[in-house]
Amino acid sequence: MRYTAGIDIGGTAIKLGIFEEGGKLIAKSSIPTDKSHNGDHIFDNIKEALYKLVESEGVDIKQLGGAGIGVPGSVVKGGIVNGCVNLGWGEINVKARFEDILGMEVRVINDANAAAYGEVLYGAAKGYNSAFMVTVGTGIGGGLVIKDRIVEGVFGAAAELGHICINPDESVECTCGKRGCLEQYCSATGIMRMAKERYKDRFFDAKELFDAGKSGDMDALSVIDEAARALALGLSYMAAAADPDVFIIGGGLSAAGDVFLDPIKKYYREFVF
Amino acid sequence: MRYTAGIDIGGTAIKLGIFEEGGKLIAKSSIPTDKSHNGDHIFDNIKEALYKLVESEGVDIKQLGGAGIGVPGSVVKGGIVNGCVNLGWGEINVKARFEDILGMEVRVINDANAAAYGEVLYGAAKGYNSAFMVTVGTGIGGGLVIKDRIVEGVFGAAAELGHICINPDESVECTCGKRGCLEQYCSATGIMRMAKERYKDRFFDAKELFDAGKSGDMDALSVIDEAARALALGLSYMAAAADPDVFIIGGGLSAAGDVFLDPIKKYYREFVF
Repeated sequence: MRYTAGIDIGGTAIKLGIFEEGGKLIAKSSIPTDKSHNGDHIFDNIKEALYKLVESEGVDIKQLGGAGIGVPGSVVKGGIVNGCVNLGWGEINVKARFEDILGMEVRVINDANAAAYGEVLYGAAKGYNSAFMVTVGTGIGGGLVIKDRIVEGVFGAAAELGHICINPDESVECTCGKRGCLEQYCSATGIMRMAKERYKDRFFDAKELFDAGKSGDMDALSVIDEAARALALGLSYMAAAADPDVFIIGGGLSAAGDVFLDPIKKYYREFVF
Repeated sequence: MRYTAGIDIGGTAIKLGIFEEGGKLIAKSSIPTDKSHNGDHIFDNIKEALYKLVESEGVDIKQLGGAGIGVPGSVVKGGIVNGCVNLGWGEINVKARFEDILGMEVRVINDANAAAYGEVLYGAAKGYNSAFMVTVGTGIGGGLVIKDRIVEGVFGAAAELGHICINPDESVECTCGKRGCLEQYCSATGIMRMAKERYKDRFFDAKELFDAGKSGDMDALSVIDEAARALALGLSYMAAAADPDVFIIGGGLSAAGDVFLDPIKKYYREFVF
């Protein structure tokens, strides 16, 4: 029997999975992301966790045909990461480094692209010709798949809508140094920034804000409405470029459900051509 | 010898060309677009013009292997046009209709997509992996090619950036019925609208405005600057979605040259991530 490893390197945790041919998950584990020393321990930590995981399943590491690794940053030329601020990485040939320490074929792609591709193969976009996935969490990322192919872009930055400028008059600076980025209005961070500006410490975090909105709290709903409007505007731009069959909204905030999704749909219909 | 016909159906004129295998143009002609009777004469007019053109070159119509036809509207399912306001067409199976009257294989695509593909094969984007073409004329259209394939989109509306909303607070209505569309600020029509609002009848048309700008006219330059800023913002959104190797700016206004291109580049660098 041959297996494949899937590894998702996040800013907080690294998730590992072992898959049978055909895509069935047979084992998984998670380790914290050690970002010290510019994220240099990540490589050995993953090797250790992967060996432990295959061992626990009675699988020989040599039965692993390869590993697919998702990283939270731009990937170019088949495996070179162009700086992952969330991991401390600068420019690293992640593919070469992992192939060296793991001794198997490795493919490295952007995490949102991996998520989009997964949704097309096995998830919410199964059977569709094209899909645009948006991940709404601490930040906003995206992945675009057209006819079974991930659109990566010349700088590995395709479908990266988090820092499009939707408000050139914004006075607050984004983490990226620019002003008026989409993330500033509809990521978890952006939503809490708006909530704090208006209602100080009334809402502890985005989950509490969305829960209040579900209970009909008008203050919470006004913030959610503005966030939804911003995201819908961003999606309408992505639709103008790629005209995908479906959008998929993932990431932590997608758990909010209809209280967030309904106004996104409403504004999207207004904005889109 | 085998030949192919290329036909560009525009709102004002229909251009026809006969090409050798390999893409060399050997003859061309142009006829006015007869939009009467909901554009119904266009089909027979093209047949007549095509027969005349091949005859003038001593080519038998049977030597034509097929025709590629560009139309100013969305094309879905390999040849169904979903309404071309500029031609008077509603929903028509243009491919089937032309194959019937011409007796040869016909491919129908959106004109800006055809232009983008042409630039990738033979023009400004030759050798690039992906290209986003923007046509700036009476309206604004676009075409996106990734790895030698045109991205058409589920509604045939990919790369159609003319009606993205860049100013939700706009009071003037666009021809599409919405407000704040990109076209309202940087198409020839949009630029003249802004010039008229500010300087009444001082500039006769977009050409005169750009010429005045080239001569250093500050009023003209302020309008050009605003148009360039709007277009650059739109391009930055398209870059966030598709991250193409190159943008190509075509259409009538591209003839303005650096007086338009320089501020577009300046603002694009500001806006893009």
